[in-house]
Amino acid sequence: MAERVAQRRGYGKGIVGEMLAEFLGTFVLLLLGIGSVAVAVVGLPGSGRQFVEFGPANWLIISWGWGLAVVFGVYVAGGISGAHINPAVTLAFAVRRDFPWRKVLPYWLAQVLGAFVAAALIYACYHWAIDASNTKAGLPRDKSLGTYSIFATFPAEYFGDSWWGPLLDQIVGTGILLLLICALIDTRNTAPMANLHPFIIGLVVVAIGLTFGTNAGYAINPARDFGPRLFTFFEGWGSIALPGTFGWFSDYWWIPIVGPLIGGVLGVFAYDLIISPVLKARMGDAEEGPATEEPS
Amino acid sequence: MAERVAQRRGYGKGIVGEMLAEFLGTFVLLLLGIGSVAVAVVGLPGSGRQFVEFGPANWLIISWGWGLAVVFGVYVAGGISGAHINPAVTLAFAVRRDFPWRKVLPYWLAQVLGAFVAAALIYACYHWAIDASNTKAGLPRDKSLGTYSIFATFPAEYFGDSWWGPLLDQIVGTGILLLLICALIDTRNTAPMANLHPFIIGLVVVAIGLTFGTNAGYAINPARDFGPRLFTFFEGWGSIALPGTFGWFSDYWWIPIVGPLIGGVLGVFAYDLIISPVLKARMGDAEEGPATEEPS
Amino acid sequence: MAERVAQRRGYGKGIVGEMLAEFLGTFVLLLLGIGSVAVAVVGLPGSGRQFVEFGPANWLIISWGWGLAVVFGVYVAGGISGAHINPAVTLAFAVRRDFPWRKVLPYWLAQVLGAFVAAALIYACYHWAIDASNTKAGLPRDKSLGTYSIFATFPAEYFGDSWWGPLLDQIVGTGILLLLICALIDTRNTAPMANLHPFIIGLVVVAIGLTFGTNAGYAINPARDFGPRLFTFFEGWGSIALPGTFGWFSDYWWIPIVGPLIGGVLGVFAYDLIISPVLKARMGDAEEGPATEEPS
Amino acid sequence: MAERVAQRRGYGKGIVGEMLAEFLGTFVLLLLGIGSVAVAVVGLPGSGRQFVEFGPANWLIISWGWGLAVVFGVYVAGGISGAHINPAVTLAFAVRRDFPWRKVLPYWLAQVLGAFVAAALIYACYHWAIDASNTKAGLPRDKSLGTYSIFATFPAEYFGDSWWGPLLDQIVGTGILLLLICALIDTRNTAPMANLHPFIIGLVVVAIGLTFGTNAGYAINPARDFGPRLFTFFEGWGSIALPGTFGWFSDYWWIPIVGPLIGGVLGVFAYDLIISPVLKARMGDAEEGPATEEPS
Repeated sequence: MAERVAQRRGYGKGIVGEMLAEFLGTFVLLLLGIGSVAVAVVGLPGSGRQFVEFGPANWLIISWGWGLAVVFGVYVAGGISGAHINPAVTLAFAVRRDFPWRKVLPYWLAQVLGAFVAAALIYACYHWAIDASNTKAGLPRDKSLGTYSIFATFPAEYFGDSWWGPLLDQIVGTGILLLLICALIDTRNTAPMANLHPFIIGLVVVAIGLTFGTNAGYAINPARDFGPRLFTFFEGWGSIALPGTFGWFSDYWWIPIVGPLIGGVLGVFAYDLIISPVLKARMGDAEEGPATEEPS
Repeated sequence: MAERVAQRRGYGKGIVGEMLAEFLGTFVLLLLGIGSVAVAVVGLPGSGRQFVEFGPANWLIISWGWGLAVVFGVYVAGGISGAHINPAVTLAFAVRRDFPWRKVLPYWLAQVLGAFVAAALIYACYHWAIDASNTKAGLPRDKSLGTYSIFATFPAEYFGDSWWGPLLDQIVGTGILLLLICALIDTRNTAPMANLHPFIIGLVVVAIGLTFGTNAGYAINPARDFGPRLFTFFEGWGSIALPGTFGWFSDYWWIPIVGPLIGGVLGVFAYDLIISPVLKARMGDAEEGPATEEPS
Repeated sequence: MAERVAQRRGYGKGIVGEMLAEFLGTFVLLLLGIGSVAVAVVGLPGSGRQFVEFGPANWLIISWGWGLAVVFGVYVAGGISGAHINPAVTLAFAVRRDFPWRKVLPYWLAQVLGAFVAAALIYACYHWAIDASNTKAGLPRDKSLGTYSIFATFPAEYFGDSWWGPLLDQIVGTGILLLLICALIDTRNTAPMANLHPFIIGLVVVAIGLTFGTNAGYAINPARDFGPRLFTFFEGWGSIALPGTFGWFSDYWWIPIVGPLIGGVLGVFAYDLIISPVLKARMGDAEEGPATEEPS
Repeated sequence: MAERVAQRRGYGKGIVGEMLAEFLGTFVLLLLGIGSVAVAVVGLPGSGRQFVEFGPANWLIISWGWGLAVVFGVYVAGGISGAHINPAVTLAFAVRRDFPWRKVLPYWLAQVLGAFVAAALIYACYHWAIDASNTKAGLPRDKSLGTYSIFATFPAEYFGDSWWGPLLDQIVGTGILLLLICALIDTRNTAPMANLHPFIIGLVVVAIGLTFGTNAGYAINPARDFGPRLFTFFEGWGSIALPGTFGWFSDYWWIPIVGPLIGGVLGVFAYDLIISPVLKARMGDAEEGPATEEPS
């Protein structure tokens, strides 16, 4: 029935269908991703602990949570839009000429909207836990970095007032993400088959969480950070959210937007500088060759 | 030999065979799933700890335990019944017209029975551990939420006397489960091939555990909760089990039944509203097209 | 060069080649499996802790360690012997008439030998760590259940002097293992393809570790327990190893042999009673049909 | 655009292309791998803890971090160079005559260079965290084994002044790595298909981390250890790095170079002695047969 309603509206064709897929894919990404931080920060039995107290097993929950969130965000949208679910991916593919520039803004809009709605739904499900945690810690929302951290990111205290450190972290984290995505979808290289590339791409984000996550919360995706940040701004976390100011950091909001956009382009550039020409030279003039099956 | 005995009884044909598969699939799901909670709550060396004391690494045991339990429940029953192993899946597929309504009740019966028998077998294997834990904590069974939690679910304390919070949690959790199952079996989208969809579907439940598990134990499956709940009612946990009353919660039993049934239907509805019509429009009039291999 | 040496000896043909594969597969299984317990018990920085003190994150190391050990044991031997690497698998397949009875004893011998040699190599690599841990705890080897636990299994204290509890645990654990192996190699069902069944079969053992591991160390494999047990008997752990006597348990050695052998047969019996006849009835008279790809 | 720049330089052909792939693959391996140690040692919220204090959940971060690092190092370089990304793999394949000797030194050079550059980039991203941790611990860099451990390896204290223990550990660890790689790329055996062998090969390194990691940091790769070691020598860790001297160990630097080179050759030798001739005998005279699909 749902299908018939939808078809009458005729939104199946063209950019609208792709925007719907990007919206839902990013929604799934954010719902599962920030859900995992909610579990790690305010959900576990006996918690009430705030972000700064938690340890390595909490980090495993978050790293696997965000990684699997990517897996399923890609599976949901993959067949329609290619499942960018990240403005940095969309920009990098446009720069690479794999994606038309005219679709960039629509994709970005759908992605940010999906992220915002997911944040709202997580809030609907977790506001009891959030309020209990803040009450236990004796903190109002706009002083609670712990409950804010469920939704959006901030830099580690050791960066002090450096903006270059977190920016570099975002550039490198998103660079490695795009470099690896390029490898994983390149059929001239060793791209996974049997429609398992979404699983392997999700593992990239598990890996980035385990290796680049603690510096500044590995946004590596402007929509992932800005959508929920906007939501928390409206829901009482105030200036922690926008402009992103608390204790040791101030005006942080732009870094998880600009950093990933730069990093994604650099990651694609690195792949196309170092790997693509070698693969092309080996393929001869053929536009597209078979993937190599054997590593030796 | 076992095969020959079975064939003589002739139960291979029709609905009985499918019910056997649903029974065994749900049995495997529950045996491994509640087994993992038993390990996390009363099994670990030096334990005797009760549910409320445990931390993030215990939660990883439970999340991976239940996720792998789904993987293998689906592998056991997949070739016969499609491995719903969850009344919410059965209902949602019937509403979607992917599954005949006349089979819904038989499937539900087989699923609840499988869950009940698995709970009994876990109890047979773990009653030494359960009794030792309760003795150490100085609690009779009907006061031990910790050992009860091995079998069935209850809401976090922070919900207070709200029934809407846990119900919403069950609706959203099961909604995302069905939304993702729809994506993962849709060959017009990016459905995993090589018979690896049971593995990826199990990862959905790992993800839900890591992201929606702590609010109310992520039943997201009426059989998973009600079968073992019934068993614990008969085995001495009394009113914690039925009607589901202890400290801050009362008459909880219906929420992990009604919530998943609603949520599952909504999840399918979301997929068929947002994704299916777009895929259909792109396929033209063809009933079934090839899965898209490449995300870009 | 190694290949040429080997061929001259002509052991490539017949049962000897299969025994070599079973030997090496079981060797890999034990080397990685008991290595993971060594890491969890005496390896981690600042350890010296003994088995009874450790927590849920140590258990994750052990569960994933043994599971991946199975993955690679099967990949090493799979193409030659079918990679039983477990006497309970060999017996169950013989009872099922999938495997000739005359090969059972040779396979068992190769498996126990592989387990023994792996225990010796782990000991060679970890005896520094073991001695440091025992020194720190002030325990001679034959009083150190902690360092013994690296190699072989023992029942949890809560079983007291019950032998039925641990035996039931071994029967159920191995039963579920064989039930799932039957499903995962049955091409009429949803058997994983693309040579990924060793990976999924290893995940079965991750699951069993997370759900049935803490009762009695989930031997679920007579060779896995008896080979290293024999080794520790000769290396100073004395009666803890054989006859398996320490504090609350005595004469334990036969349980991880007999339990798995019974359980494996029952697991195959359950699959062939409940699932096989249904699949056969659906396939008609065809001996072998295609695997079902879709769960719905 | 990047592609066009690259092609003009003409480095797509011959050994240079393969060296670029080895460089980038090893770079990815090290970036993610040592990044995970940085997270586990100095990155987690509230840290400042040094290596010796950390526990089993930190070890899970490191084991999965390095394992996924291998997965993606292999996916990046697999289609061009076969993705050795480890001098011990290169040497072992040359000894096996699977790889031309004349390419060994170029590969080694590219690998060490990739490792060195990755260490520099991790340092650029983590020097704030490293300095904060050292300040908190009151240690200058050349006394901080904890922050050194992010980059390169050292033996556990329990080895005392034994060099044989850590050397044996490196030989066995790398031996099992190469033994399993041989199995996983042997299409006569059960080699994973659908381009998923990089995933499974990465799981080998997860397994080795969980089972052989704590003795001496499981370098099992001369480039992985020597590249970052060189970098830390220049960046202030002094003699801890080169010659590898601190407290209980001295002149350690050569062990993670020599041990893996020996172990890799022995691992290939073991496979070609025990498994290859059996597979060859079964294949008859055929050079290459189909992989066996079924384990039973």
